[in-house]
Amino acid sequence: MSILRSFTAALLGLGVFAGSALADGHLDAAVKARKAHMQLYAFNLGQLGGMAKGEIDYDAAAAGAAAANLADLAAMNQARYWPEGSDNFAMGEETRTLPALWDNIDDVRKISGDLEEATTALASAAGQDLDSLRAALGDVGKACGACHEDYRQSND
Amino acid sequence: MSILRSFTAALLGLGVFAGSALADGHLDAAVKARKAHMQLYAFNLGQLGGMAKGEIDYDAAAAGAAAANLADLAAMNQARYWPEGSDNFAMGEETRTLPALWDNIDDVRKISGDLEEATTALASAAGQDLDSLRAALGDVGKACGACHEDYRQSND
Repeated sequence: MSILRSFTAALLGLGVFAGSALADGHLDAAVKARKAHMQLYAFNLGQLGGMAKGEIDYDAAAAGAAAANLADLAAMNQARYWPEGSDNFAMGEETRTLPALWDNIDDVRKISGDLEEATTALASAAGQDLDSLRAALGDVGKACGACHEDYRQSND
Repeated sequence: MSILRSFTAALLGLGVFAGSALADGHLDAAVKARKAHMQLYAFNLGQLGGMAKGEIDYDAAAAGAAAANLADLAAMNQARYWPEGSDNFAMGEETRTLPALWDNIDDVRKISGDLEEATTALASAAGQDLDSLRAALGDVGKACGACHEDYRQSND
């Protein structure tokens, strides 16, 4: 557990947050929704990554469908997922989103745009052949990683 | 707890399913993904329903964005969410999807098409004004209800 998480947990234990952010159903709903959205990225990426690694037989139609799903997800309006106060300092274990995300909204928007672009390219490539799928997956992974590295609490 | 659920729970207690469907990560992943998808329906519908009921101030841009999200979600390829064996008889408490869904795939597809149509209409209407939003929500609710009534275990 990181120092930040330990500190947050200690405050939670003391009831410091009682009646504030923790009691706010609006924030809980937002966190649940963004986790659900990430879950759908992972579900579709899992299939494509399995094909890229040769663990799942390449299937052009299935690859195209999963990649189209990713592009649709990336293009969806996600503004309501990230209300102020829904960071892991305020909410504790419920989320891994670092407060830094809200201090760097322009960067987050840039990465979000990169993801949209990369998934659109993947949606064109994935159904062509396995090499095209593999080549297009890299930029998607880069966009995912860019946000997670800077704005998601690591599990270390 | 329903008779079906009690029976399933009893079998689970006896370990009857050990090593079969319960151990299949593929089925677990599918159930998680479809629950995530439903969560995103609920998140966007919650905002629109709140506006329709007057609990949230009507905001044309926000309503349009939520409705567009619903239409995008309804149009996504969801074939991998429903593998054979991922019903609540085989998997127990993990899912409420009744085995009947797989016996009535044509009806499920029809309802799924109805939902896509209703959310597309909602996406056009929601940003116009509150009356248009209200009028278009009804058909979305009907499609949700049609599937839940016949293919989801009730909580009674």
